[in-house]
Amino acid sequence: MPSPPIAGKKRGFVVPIGGAEDKMHARVIHERFLKLSGKGEARIVIIPTASRLKDTGERYAALYKELGAGEAFHLPILRRSDCEKPEYLNLLETATGVFLTGGNQLRLTTIMGGTTLARNLRRLNAQGVHVAGTSAGAGFLSEHMIAGGSAGATPTQSGVILAPGLGLTNAVVIDQHFRQRDRLGRLLTALSYNPFAIGMGLDEDTAAFLGPNGVFEVVGSGGVTVVDPSTLEYSSMASAAPGQPVSLVGLKLHILTNGARFDTKSREAKIAG
Amino acid sequence: MPSPPIAGKKRGFVVPIGGAEDKMHARVIHERFLKLSGKGEARIVIIPTASRLKDTGERYAALYKELGAGEAFHLPILRRSDCEKPEYLNLLETATGVFLTGGNQLRLTTIMGGTTLARNLRRLNAQGVHVAGTSAGAGFLSEHMIAGGSAGATPTQSGVILAPGLGLTNAVVIDQHFRQRDRLGRLLTALSYNPFAIGMGLDEDTAAFLGPNGVFEVVGSGGVTVVDPSTLEYSSMASAAPGQPVSLVGLKLHILTNGARFDTKSREAKIAG
Repeated sequence: MPSPPIAGKKRGFVVPIGGAEDKMHARVIHERFLKLSGKGEARIVIIPTASRLKDTGERYAALYKELGAGEAFHLPILRRSDCEKPEYLNLLETATGVFLTGGNQLRLTTIMGGTTLARNLRRLNAQGVHVAGTSAGAGFLSEHMIAGGSAGATPTQSGVILAPGLGLTNAVVIDQHFRQRDRLGRLLTALSYNPFAIGMGLDEDTAAFLGPNGVFEVVGSGGVTVVDPSTLEYSSMASAAPGQPVSLVGLKLHILTNGARFDTKSREAKIAG
Repeated sequence: MPSPPIAGKKRGFVVPIGGAEDKMHARVIHERFLKLSGKGEARIVIIPTASRLKDTGERYAALYKELGAGEAFHLPILRRSDCEKPEYLNLLETATGVFLTGGNQLRLTTIMGGTTLARNLRRLNAQGVHVAGTSAGAGFLSEHMIAGGSAGATPTQSGVILAPGLGLTNAVVIDQHFRQRDRLGRLLTALSYNPFAIGMGLDEDTAAFLGPNGVFEVVGSGGVTVVDPSTLEYSSMASAAPGQPVSLVGLKLHILTNGARFDTKSREAKIAG
Protein backbone atom coordinates (compact mmCIF):
# COMPACT_ATOMS: atom_id res chain seq x y z
CA MET A 1 0.00 0.00 0.00
CA PRO A 2 1.22 3.53 -0.69
CA SER A 3 2.21 5.65 2.31
CA PRO A 4 -0.91 7.23 3.88
CA PRO A 5 -2.00 10.57 2.42
CA ILE A 6 -0.79 13.66 4.22
CA ALA A 7 -3.34 16.36 5.07
CA GLY A 8 -3.14 19.32 2.72
CA LYS A 9 -0.58 17.60 0.45
CA LYS A 10 -1.17 16.19 -3.00
CA ARG A 11 0.70 12.99 -3.83
CA GLY A 12 3.50 13.20 -6.39
CA PHE A 13 3.29 11.50 -9.76
CA VAL A 14 4.52 7.94 -10.20
CA VAL A 15 6.19 7.55 -13.59
CA PRO A 16 7.17 4.08 -14.79
CA ILE A 17 9.14 4.05 -18.07
CA GLY A 18 9.54 0.93 -20.25
CA GLY A 19 13.33 1.21 -20.54
CA ALA A 20 15.64 2.38 -23.34
CA GLU A 21 14.03 5.83 -23.30
CA ASP A 22 15.44 8.43 -25.65
CA LYS A 23 18.35 10.26 -23.98
CA MET A 24 19.89 11.75 -27.12
CA HIS A 25 17.25 13.41 -29.29
CA ALA A 26 13.80 14.72 -28.33
CA ARG A 27 14.03 13.15 -24.86
CA VAL A 28 10.31 13.80 -24.39
CA ILE A 29 9.96 11.58 -21.32
CA HIS A 30 12.83 13.20 -19.42
CA GLU A 31 11.69 16.68 -20.52
CA ARG A 32 8.21 15.95 -19.23
CA PHE A 33 9.46 14.58 -15.92
CA LEU A 34 11.72 17.59 -15.46
CA LYS A 35 8.90 20.03 -16.21
CA LEU A 36 6.66 18.21 -13.73
CA SER A 37 9.42 18.46 -11.09
CA GLY A 38 9.86 22.22 -11.46
CA LYS A 39 12.16 22.65 -14.50
CA GLY A 40 14.66 25.42 -13.50
CA GLU A 41 13.62 25.01 -9.86
CA ALA A 42 13.79 21.22 -9.97
CA ARG A 43 16.13 19.20 -7.79
CA ILE A 44 16.43 15.76 -9.41
CA VAL A 45 17.91 12.98 -7.29
CA ILE A 46 19.10 9.93 -9.22
CA ILE A 47 19.16 6.52 -7.52
CA PRO A 48 21.33 4.24 -9.69
CA THR A 49 21.18 1.25 -7.34
CA ALA A 50 19.71 -1.18 -9.90
CA SER A 51 22.68 -0.69 -12.21
CA ARG A 52 26.09 -2.33 -11.94
CA LEU A 53 27.69 0.30 -14.17
CA LYS A 54 29.67 2.90 -12.23
CA ASP A 55 28.73 5.95 -14.26
CA THR A 56 24.94 5.42 -14.54
CA GLY A 57 24.12 7.91 -11.80
CA GLU A 58 26.45 10.56 -13.13
CA ARG A 59 25.21 10.20 -16.67
CA TYR A 60 21.57 10.71 -15.70
CA ALA A 61 22.54 13.68 -13.50
CA ALA A 62 24.40 15.21 -16.47
CA LEU A 63 21.38 14.63 -18.70
CA TYR A 64 19.05 16.45 -16.32
CA LYS A 65 21.48 19.35 -15.93
CA GLU A 66 21.72 19.61 -19.71
CA LEU A 67 17.91 19.72 -19.89
CA GLY A 68 17.92 22.68 -17.51
CA ALA A 69 17.29 21.21 -14.06
CA GLY A 70 18.05 23.59 -11.16
CA GLU A 71 20.06 20.80 -9.61
CA ALA A 72 20.66 17.12 -10.40
CA PHE A 73 22.89 14.64 -8.61
CA HIS A 74 22.99 10.95 -7.76
CA LEU A 75 23.13 9.04 -4.48
CA PRO A 76 25.66 6.18 -4.81
CA ILE A 77 23.63 3.64 -2.87
CA LEU A 78 25.39 0.29 -3.24
CA ARG A 79 24.52 -1.56 -0.04
CA ARG A 80 21.86 -1.59 2.65
CA SER A 81 23.97 0.47 5.06
CA ASP A 82 24.05 3.29 2.46
CA CYS A 83 20.27 3.55 2.91
CA GLU A 84 20.77 4.69 6.52
CA LYS A 85 23.49 7.31 5.91
CA PRO A 86 22.30 10.71 7.18
CA GLU A 87 23.97 12.65 4.34
CA TYR A 88 22.08 10.65 1.69
CA LEU A 89 18.82 10.84 3.63
CA ASN A 90 19.23 14.61 4.00
CA LEU A 91 19.93 15.03 0.30
CA LEU A 92 16.85 12.94 -0.57
CA GLU A 93 14.69 15.35 1.47
CA THR A 94 15.67 18.20 -0.88
CA ALA A 95 14.38 16.41 -4.01
CA THR A 96 11.46 17.63 -6.12
CA GLY A 97 11.84 14.57 -8.39
CA VAL A 98 13.52 11.19 -7.86
CA PHE A 99 14.67 8.99 -10.74
CA LEU A 100 15.43 5.28 -10.38
CA THR A 101 17.63 3.89 -13.16
CA GLY A 102 17.46 0.50 -14.87
CA GLY A 103 19.45 -2.60 -14.06
CA ASN A 104 18.22 -5.47 -11.89
CA GLN A 105 15.05 -4.88 -9.87
CA LEU A 106 16.14 -7.44 -7.28
CA ARG A 107 19.09 -5.18 -6.49
CA LEU A 108 16.58 -2.44 -5.70
CA THR A 109 14.41 -4.64 -3.46
CA THR A 110 17.28 -6.39 -1.69
CA ILE A 111 19.32 -3.21 -1.08
CA MET A 112 16.51 -0.71 -0.40
CA GLY A 113 13.64 -2.86 0.93
CA GLY A 114 12.73 -2.03 4.54
CA THR A 115 15.38 0.70 4.92
CA THR A 116 14.93 4.28 6.08
CA LEU A 117 15.63 5.48 2.54
CA ALA A 118 12.76 3.41 1.10
CA ARG A 119 10.41 4.54 3.88
CA ASN A 120 11.35 8.18 3.31
CA LEU A 121 10.96 7.87 -0.44
CA ARG A 122 7.43 6.55 0.09
CA ARG A 123 6.65 9.45 2.45
CA LEU A 124 8.14 12.02 0.07
CA ASN A 125 5.98 10.71 -2.79
CA ALA A 126 2.91 11.01 -0.55
CA GLN A 127 3.99 14.62 0.16
CA GLY A 128 4.17 15.53 -3.52
CA VAL A 129 7.65 14.52 -4.72
CA HIS A 130 7.48 12.88 -8.15
CA VAL A 131 9.16 9.50 -8.61
CA ALA A 132 10.12 8.03 -11.98
CA GLY A 133 11.86 4.77 -12.78
CA THR A 134 13.00 3.17 -16.00
CA SER A 135 13.11 -0.56 -16.77
CA ALA A 136 14.00 -2.26 -13.44
CA GLY A 137 13.30 1.06 -11.76
CA ALA A 138 9.79 1.06 -13.25
CA GLY A 139 8.93 -2.44 -12.10
CA PHE A 140 10.08 -1.60 -8.59
CA LEU A 141 7.57 1.27 -8.22
CA SER A 142 4.47 -0.85 -7.71
CA GLU A 143 3.38 -2.90 -4.71
CA HIS A 144 3.51 -6.19 -6.63
CA MET A 145 6.67 -6.34 -8.70
CA ILE A 146 7.46 -8.73 -11.55
CA ALA A 147 10.94 -10.03 -10.77
CA GLY A 148 11.18 -12.51 -13.63
CA GLY A 149 9.27 -14.98 -15.75
CA SER A 150 8.82 -16.65 -19.13
CA ALA A 151 8.52 -14.87 -22.47
CA GLY A 152 5.51 -15.44 -24.72
CA ALA A 153 1.91 -14.37 -25.09
CA THR A 154 0.19 -17.22 -23.23
CA PRO A 155 0.12 -17.22 -19.43
CA THR A 156 1.44 -20.35 -17.73
CA GLN A 157 1.33 -21.62 -14.19
CA SER A 158 4.61 -20.51 -12.52
CA GLY A 159 5.22 -18.28 -15.57
CA VAL A 160 6.08 -15.27 -13.42
CA ILE A 161 8.06 -14.48 -10.29
CA LEU A 162 6.39 -11.84 -8.14
CA ALA A 163 8.08 -9.98 -5.31
CA PRO A 164 7.09 -7.03 -3.15
CA GLY A 165 8.13 -3.72 -4.68
CA LEU A 166 8.45 -0.17 -3.32
CA GLY A 167 4.66 0.16 -3.30
CA LEU A 168 4.11 3.71 -4.51
CA THR A 169 0.96 2.38 -6.20
CA ASN A 170 -1.06 -0.80 -6.02
CA ALA A 171 -3.36 0.17 -8.88
CA VAL A 172 -1.08 -1.42 -11.47
CA VAL A 173 1.34 -4.28 -11.97
CA ILE A 174 4.08 -2.98 -14.25
CA ASP A 175 6.10 -4.77 -16.89
CA GLN A 176 8.75 -3.19 -19.10
CA HIS A 177 10.47 -3.74 -22.48
CA PHE A 178 7.02 -5.10 -23.20
CA ARG A 179 6.85 -5.44 -26.94
CA GLN A 180 10.60 -5.88 -27.20
CA ARG A 181 10.76 -8.86 -24.83
CA ASP A 182 7.36 -10.46 -25.42
CA ARG A 183 5.96 -10.25 -21.93
CA LEU A 184 2.18 -10.42 -22.19
CA GLY A 185 2.09 -13.98 -20.82
CA ARG A 186 3.98 -13.17 -17.67
CA LEU A 187 1.89 -10.06 -17.06
CA LEU A 188 -1.30 -12.12 -17.48
CA THR A 189 0.10 -14.74 -15.12
CA ALA A 190 0.78 -12.03 -12.54
CA LEU A 191 -2.82 -10.84 -12.84
CA SER A 192 -4.32 -14.33 -12.85
CA TYR A 193 -3.35 -15.01 -9.24
CA ASN A 194 -5.46 -12.17 -7.94
CA PRO A 195 -7.08 -10.01 -10.58
CA PHE A 196 -7.47 -6.85 -8.51
CA ALA A 197 -4.77 -4.74 -10.17
CA ILE A 198 -4.45 -3.47 -13.72
CA GLY A 199 -1.68 -4.88 -15.88
CA MET A 200 0.50 -2.19 -17.46
CA GLY A 201 2.91 -3.37 -20.15
CA LEU A 202 5.28 -0.55 -21.13
CA ASP A 203 7.12 -0.61 -24.43
CA GLU A 204 10.61 0.81 -24.56
CA ASP A 205 10.84 4.64 -24.80
CA THR A 206 7.32 4.85 -23.39
CA ALA A 207 6.16 6.11 -19.99
CA ALA A 208 2.95 6.28 -17.98
CA PHE A 209 2.60 9.52 -15.99
CA LEU A 210 0.31 8.35 -13.18
CA GLY A 211 -1.15 11.30 -11.31
CA PRO A 212 -2.58 11.56 -7.79
CA ASN A 213 -6.11 11.31 -9.28
CA GLY A 214 -5.36 7.76 -10.51
CA VAL A 215 -5.25 8.76 -14.19
CA PHE A 216 -2.14 8.05 -16.23
CA GLU A 217 -1.10 9.57 -19.54
CA VAL A 218 1.05 7.78 -22.10
CA VAL A 219 4.18 9.65 -23.21
CA GLY A 220 6.69 8.33 -25.73
CA SER A 221 7.15 6.52 -29.02
CA GLY A 222 5.74 3.08 -28.13
CA GLY A 223 2.54 1.69 -26.68
CA VAL A 224 1.22 0.83 -23.27
CA THR A 225 -0.68 -2.46 -23.14
CA VAL A 226 -3.40 -2.26 -20.50
CA VAL A 227 -4.97 -5.49 -19.27
CA ASP A 228 -8.04 -4.89 -17.11
CA PRO A 229 -9.08 -8.08 -15.33
CA SER A 230 -12.07 -6.47 -13.58
CA THR A 231 -14.41 -8.31 -15.96
CA LEU A 232 -12.60 -11.65 -15.53
CA GLU A 233 -15.12 -14.49 -15.43
CA TYR A 234 -12.76 -17.40 -14.89
CA SER A 235 -9.11 -18.21 -14.13
CA SER A 236 -7.79 -21.78 -14.03
CA MET A 237 -4.65 -20.74 -12.14
CA ALA A 238 -5.75 -22.51 -8.96
CA SER A 239 -5.88 -25.89 -10.70
CA ALA A 240 -3.18 -25.62 -13.40
CA ALA A 241 0.02 -27.64 -13.08
CA PRO A 242 3.42 -25.86 -13.17
CA GLY A 243 4.39 -24.83 -16.70
CA GLN A 244 0.88 -25.54 -18.02
CA PRO A 245 -1.00 -22.81 -19.85
CA VAL A 246 -3.72 -21.06 -17.86
CA SER A 247 -7.26 -20.33 -19.02
CA LEU A 248 -8.43 -16.75 -18.51
CA VAL A 249 -11.88 -15.71 -19.71
CA GLY A 250 -13.22 -12.19 -19.98
CA LEU A 251 -10.21 -9.86 -19.79
CA LYS A 252 -10.32 -6.37 -21.26
CA LEU A 253 -7.40 -5.23 -23.39
CA HIS A 254 -6.38 -1.77 -24.54
CA ILE A 255 -3.32 -0.57 -26.42
CA LEU A 256 -2.64 3.09 -25.72
CA THR A 257 -0.19 5.41 -27.44
CA ASN A 258 1.24 8.88 -26.89
CA GLY A 259 -1.31 11.28 -25.41
CA ALA A 260 -3.90 8.64 -24.48
CA ARG A 261 -5.05 8.48 -20.86
CA PHE A 262 -6.41 5.73 -18.66
CA ASP A 263 -8.31 6.16 -15.42
CA THR A 264 -7.25 3.35 -13.07
CA LYS A 265 -10.32 3.99 -10.89
CA SER A 266 -13.13 4.06 -13.45
CA ARG A 267 -11.00 1.86 -15.76
CA GLU A 268 -11.82 3.98 -18.76
CA ALA A 269 -9.49 4.90 -21.61
CA LYS A 270 -9.52 8.34 -23.17
CA ILE A 271 -7.86 8.93 -26.50
CA ALA A 272 -5.87 12.10 -27.17
CA GLY A 273 -7.32 15.00 -29.14
CA MET B 1 -16.69 -16.38 -47.70
CA PRO B 2 -17.11 -20.12 -47.25
CA SER B 3 -18.71 -22.09 -50.06
CA PRO B 4 -22.54 -21.83 -49.84
CA PRO B 5 -24.24 -24.45 -47.66
CA ILE B 6 -25.57 -27.50 -49.45
CA ALA B 7 -29.15 -28.59 -48.71
CA GLY B 8 -29.27 -31.57 -46.39
CA LYS B 9 -25.51 -31.50 -45.75
CA LYS B 10 -23.72 -30.40 -42.60
CA ARG B 11 -20.44 -28.56 -43.11
CA GLY B 12 -17.27 -30.33 -42.11
CA PHE B 13 -15.09 -29.15 -39.24
CA VAL B 14 -12.32 -26.64 -39.85
CA VAL B 15 -9.31 -27.48 -37.67
CA PRO B 16 -6.41 -25.02 -37.49
CA ILE B 17 -3.40 -26.30 -35.51
CA GLY B 18 -0.67 -24.01 -34.14
CA GLY B 19 2.23 -26.04 -35.60
CA ALA B 20 4.72 -28.46 -34.03
CA GLU B 21 1.89 -30.75 -32.92
CA ASP B 22 2.85 -33.96 -31.17
CA LYS B 23 3.44 -36.70 -33.76
CA MET B 24 5.37 -39.10 -31.49
CA HIS B 25 3.58 -39.59 -28.17
CA ALA B 26 -0.07 -39.04 -27.28
CA ARG B 27 -0.79 -37.37 -30.63
CA VAL B 28 -4.13 -36.15 -29.28
CA ILE B 29 -4.76 -33.68 -32.09
CA HIS B 30 -4.20 -36.21 -34.87
CA GLU B 31 -6.17 -38.88 -32.95
CA ARG B 32 -9.06 -36.46 -32.61
CA PHE B 33 -9.00 -35.43 -36.26
CA LEU B 34 -8.89 -39.08 -37.32
CA LYS B 35 -11.81 -40.01 -35.07
CA LEU B 36 -13.81 -37.08 -36.47
CA SER B 37 -13.03 -38.25 -40.02
CA GLY B 38 -14.27 -41.82 -39.43
CA LYS B 39 -11.34 -43.63 -37.74
CA GLY B 40 -11.14 -47.07 -39.45
CA GLU B 41 -13.41 -45.82 -42.23
CA ALA B 42 -11.50 -42.57 -42.67
CA ARG B 43 -9.78 -41.62 -45.91
CA ILE B 44 -7.24 -38.94 -45.04
CA VAL B 45 -5.80 -36.92 -47.92
CA ILE B 46 -2.59 -35.02 -47.12
CA ILE B 47 -1.76 -31.85 -49.07
CA PRO B 48 1.94 -31.11 -48.42
CA THR B 49 2.13 -28.14 -50.80
CA ALA B 50 3.30 -25.62 -48.17
CA SER B 51 6.40 -27.71 -47.44
CA ARG B 52 9.62 -27.81 -49.42
CA LEU B 53 10.64 -31.12 -47.87
CA LYS B 54 10.09 -34.09 -50.16
CA ASP B 55 8.87 -36.57 -47.55
CA THR B 56 6.37 -34.38 -45.65
CA GLY B 57 3.33 -35.87 -47.39
CA GLU B 58 4.50 -39.45 -46.98
CA ARG B 59 5.33 -38.94 -43.32
CA TYR B 60 1.89 -37.61 -42.46
CA ALA B 61 0.25 -40.41 -44.47
CA ALA B 62 2.31 -42.98 -42.52
CA LEU B 63 1.30 -41.33 -39.24
CA TYR B 64 -2.41 -41.55 -40.06
CA LYS B 65 -2.07 -45.20 -41.15
CA GLU B 66 -0.28 -45.98 -37.89
CA LEU B 67 -3.14 -44.34 -35.98
CA GLY B 68 -5.59 -46.67 -37.74
CA ALA B 69 -6.96 -44.68 -40.67
CA GLY B 70 -8.81 -46.78 -43.27
CA GLU B 71 -6.70 -45.04 -45.90
CA ALA B 72 -4.18 -42.20 -45.93
CA PHE B 73 -2.17 -40.82 -48.84
CA HIS B 74 -0.79 -37.55 -50.08
CA LEU B 75 -1.29 -35.54 -53.26
CA PRO B 76 2.10 -34.24 -54.47
CA ILE B 77 0.84 -30.83 -55.56
CA LEU B 78 3.89 -28.74 -56.44
CA ARG B 79 2.63 -26.35 -59.09
CA ARG B 80 -0.61 -24.78 -60.26
CA SER B 81 -1.07 -27.28 -63.09
CA ASP B 82 -1.12 -30.09 -60.50
CA CYS B 83 -4.32 -28.53 -59.14
CA GLU B 84 -6.12 -29.32 -62.39
CA LYS B 85 -4.98 -32.97 -62.78
CA PRO B 86 -8.04 -35.26 -62.95
CA GLU B 87 -6.34 -38.05 -60.96
CA TYR B 88 -5.66 -35.75 -58.02
CA LEU B 89 -9.12 -34.17 -58.21
CA ASN B 90 -10.71 -37.63 -58.26
CA LEU B 91 -8.67 -38.77 -55.26
CA LEU B 92 -9.64 -35.61 -53.37
CA GLU B 93 -13.34 -36.47 -53.89
CA THR B 94 -12.84 -39.70 -51.89
CA ALA B 95 -11.55 -37.91 -48.76
CA THR B 96 -13.37 -37.89 -45.44
CA GLY B 97 -10.64 -35.65 -43.99
CA VAL B 98 -8.05 -33.38 -45.64
CA PHE B 99 -4.84 -32.34 -43.89
CA LEU B 100 -2.71 -29.37 -45.00
CA THR B 101 0.88 -29.50 -43.72
CA GLY B 102 3.08 -26.65 -42.55
CA GLY B 103 5.67 -24.73 -44.55
CA ASN B 104 5.06 -21.41 -46.25
CA GLN B 105 1.46 -20.22 -46.50
CA LEU B 106 2.29 -18.17 -49.60
CA ARG B 107 3.13 -21.43 -51.37
CA LEU B 108 -0.42 -22.56 -50.57
CA THR B 109 -2.06 -19.38 -51.83
CA THR B 110 0.12 -18.96 -54.91
CA ILE B 111 -0.08 -22.62 -56.00
CA MET B 112 -3.68 -23.44 -55.00
CA GLY B 113 -5.46 -20.07 -55.13
CA GLY B 114 -8.21 -19.94 -57.78
CA THR B 115 -7.63 -23.52 -59.00
CA THR B 116 -10.14 -26.33 -59.39
CA LEU B 117 -8.55 -28.12 -56.44
CA ALA B 118 -9.12 -25.15 -54.12
CA ARG B 119 -12.69 -24.73 -55.37
CA ASN B 120 -13.40 -28.42 -54.86
CA LEU B 121 -11.84 -28.42 -51.40
CA ARG B 122 -14.16 -25.55 -50.42
CA ARG B 123 -17.16 -27.45 -51.79
CA LEU B 124 -16.14 -30.69 -50.06
CA ASN B 125 -15.87 -28.88 -46.71
CA ALA B 126 -19.37 -27.46 -47.26
CA GLN B 127 -20.54 -31.04 -47.94
CA GLY B 128 -19.14 -32.38 -44.67
CA VAL B 129 -15.48 -33.23 -45.31
CA HIS B 130 -13.29 -32.12 -42.40
CA VAL B 131 -10.24 -29.98 -43.18
CA ALA B 132 -7.28 -29.54 -40.83
CA GLY B 133 -4.10 -27.57 -41.31
CA THR B 134 -1.01 -27.06 -39.19
CA SER B 135 1.15 -23.93 -39.04
CA ALA B 136 1.08 -22.45 -42.57
CA GLY B 137 -1.76 -24.86 -43.33
CA ALA B 138 -3.73 -23.40 -40.41
CA GLY B 139 -3.29 -19.79 -41.44
CA PHE B 140 -4.41 -20.64 -44.98
CA LEU B 141 -7.82 -21.97 -43.81
CA SER B 142 -9.43 -18.60 -43.09
CA GLU B 143 -10.67 -15.94 -45.49
CA HIS B 144 -8.17 -13.35 -44.26
CA MET B 145 -4.76 -14.92 -43.88
CA ILE B 146 -1.76 -13.52 -42.04
CA ALA B 147 1.13 -13.91 -44.47
CA GLY B 148 3.78 -12.18 -42.35
CA GLY B 149 4.44 -9.39 -39.90
CA SER B 150 6.42 -8.10 -36.93
CA ALA B 151 6.89 -9.93 -33.63
CA GLY B 152 5.91 -8.30 -30.34
CA ALA B 153 2.84 -7.63 -28.23
CA THR B 154 2.02 -4.11 -29.44
CA PRO B 155 0.23 -3.63 -32.76
CA THR B 156 1.90 -1.28 -35.23
CA GLN B 157 0.78 0.32 -38.45
CA SER B 158 1.99 -1.99 -41.28
CA GLY B 159 2.80 -4.60 -38.63
CA VAL B 160 1.09 -7.37 -40.54
CA ILE B 161 0.78 -8.61 -44.11
CA LEU B 162 -2.68 -9.90 -44.92
CA ALA B 163 -3.56 -11.98 -47.95
CA PRO B 164 -6.67 -13.86 -49.05
CA GLY B 165 -6.71 -17.43 -47.78
CA LEU B 166 -8.73 -20.53 -48.70
CA GLY B 167 -11.76 -19.05 -46.94
CA LEU B 168 -13.28 -22.08 -45.19
CA THR B 169 -14.27 -19.65 -42.42
CA ASN B 170 -14.42 -15.91 -42.05
CA ALA B 171 -15.30 -16.01 -38.35
CA VAL B 172 -11.65 -16.00 -37.31
CA VAL B 173 -8.27 -14.65 -38.33
CA ILE B 174 -5.75 -17.34 -37.41
CA ASP B 175 -2.18 -17.01 -36.23
CA GLN B 176 0.13 -19.89 -35.29
CA HIS B 177 3.23 -20.60 -33.17
CA PHE B 178 1.56 -17.89 -31.13
CA ARG B 179 3.30 -17.96 -27.78
CA GLN B 180 6.48 -19.34 -29.32
CA ARG B 181 6.88 -16.52 -31.85
CA ASP B 182 5.32 -13.61 -29.97
CA ARG B 183 2.55 -12.75 -32.37
CA LEU B 184 -0.10 -10.86 -30.44
CA GLY B 185 0.85 -7.55 -32.03
CA ARG B 186 0.46 -8.74 -35.59
CA LEU B 187 -2.84 -10.44 -34.79
CA LEU B 188 -4.10 -7.21 -33.21
CA THR B 189 -2.92 -5.29 -36.25
CA ALA B 190 -4.84 -7.67 -38.50
CA LEU B 191 -8.00 -7.08 -36.45
CA SER B 192 -7.51 -3.32 -36.17
CA TYR B 193 -8.10 -2.74 -39.88
CA ASN B 194 -11.63 -4.09 -39.70
CA PRO B 195 -12.63 -5.56 -36.38
CA PHE B 196 -15.37 -7.91 -37.64
CA ALA B 197 -13.53 -11.19 -37.15
CA ILE B 198 -12.24 -12.90 -34.02
CA GLY B 199 -8.47 -13.20 -33.56
CA MET B 200 -7.36 -16.77 -32.86
CA GLY B 201 -3.74 -17.17 -31.72
CA LEU B 202 -2.82 -20.85 -31.61
CA ASP B 203 0.13 -22.03 -29.55
CA GLU B 204 2.17 -24.93 -30.86
CA ASP B 205 0.70 -28.42 -30.28
CA THR B 206 -2.73 -26.81 -29.90
CA ALA B 207 -5.75 -26.97 -32.20
CA ALA B 208 -9.18 -25.39 -32.48
CA PHE B 209 -11.85 -27.82 -33.69
CA LEU B 210 -14.33 -25.41 -35.25
CA GLY B 211 -17.67 -27.11 -35.87
CA PRO B 212 -20.47 -26.26 -38.28
CA ASN B 213 -22.35 -24.59 -35.39
CA GLY B 214 -19.59 -21.95 -35.07
CA VAL B 215 -18.29 -23.32 -31.77
CA PHE B 216 -14.66 -24.38 -31.47
CA GLU B 217 -13.07 -26.60 -28.85
CA VAL B 218 -9.43 -26.33 -27.81
CA VAL B 219 -7.41 -29.56 -28.04
CA GLY B 220 -3.73 -29.85 -27.12
CA SER B 221 -1.06 -28.87 -24.64
CA GLY B 222 -0.93 -25.10 -25.20
CA GLY B 223 -3.38 -22.22 -25.19
CA VAL B 224 -5.55 -20.44 -27.69
CA THR B 225 -5.52 -16.67 -27.33
CA VAL B 226 -8.89 -15.26 -28.40
CA VAL B 227 -9.15 -11.55 -29.16
CA ASP B 228 -12.74 -10.41 -29.56
CA PRO B 229 -12.87 -6.91 -31.05
CA SER B 230 -16.70 -6.72 -31.02
CA THR B 231 -16.52 -4.31 -28.07
CA LEU B 232 -13.79 -2.17 -29.68
CA GLU B 233 -14.43 1.50 -28.96
CA TYR B 234 -11.53 3.03 -30.86
CA SER B 235 -8.75 2.15 -33.31
CA SER B 236 -6.14 4.69 -34.43
CA MET B 237 -5.11 2.56 -37.42
CA ALA B 238 -6.58 5.00 -39.91
CA SER B 239 -4.32 7.83 -38.73
CA ALA B 240 -1.15 6.01 -37.55
CA ALA B 241 2.06 6.34 -39.56
CA PRO B 242 3.85 3.20 -40.81
CA GLY B 243 5.72 1.42 -38.03
CA GLN B 244 4.00 3.50 -35.34
CA PRO B 245 2.14 1.75 -32.54
CA VAL B 246 -1.62 1.71 -32.84
CA SER B 247 -4.12 2.55 -30.09
CA LEU B 248 -6.91 0.02 -29.58
CA VAL B 249 -9.45 0.56 -26.82
CA GLY B 250 -11.98 -1.96 -25.54
CA LEU B 251 -10.86 -5.36 -26.82
CA LYS B 252 -11.89 -8.55 -25.05
CA LEU B 253 -9.22 -11.14 -24.37
CA HIS B 254 -9.53 -14.81 -23.41
CA ILE B 255 -6.90 -17.50 -23.01
CA LEU B 256 -8.41 -20.95 -23.50
CA THR B 257 -6.81 -24.32 -22.81
CA ASN B 258 -7.61 -27.97 -23.55
CA GLY B 259 -11.34 -28.71 -23.39
CA ALA B 260 -12.49 -25.08 -23.34
CA ARG B 261 -14.96 -23.97 -26.00
CA PHE B 262 -15.73 -20.67 -27.66
CA ASP B 263 -18.84 -19.76 -29.59
CA THR B 264 -17.82 -17.51 -32.47
CA LYS B 265 -21.44 -16.39 -32.93
CA SER B 266 -22.43 -15.46 -29.37
CA ARG B 267 -18.73 -14.78 -28.58
CA GLU B 268 -18.96 -16.64 -25.30
CA ALA B 269 -16.31 -18.87 -23.75
CA LYS B 270 -17.24 -22.06 -21.94
CA ILE B 271 -14.71 -23.75 -19.71
CA ALA B 272 -14.36 -27.55 -19.64
CA GLY B 273 -15.92 -29.64 -16.87
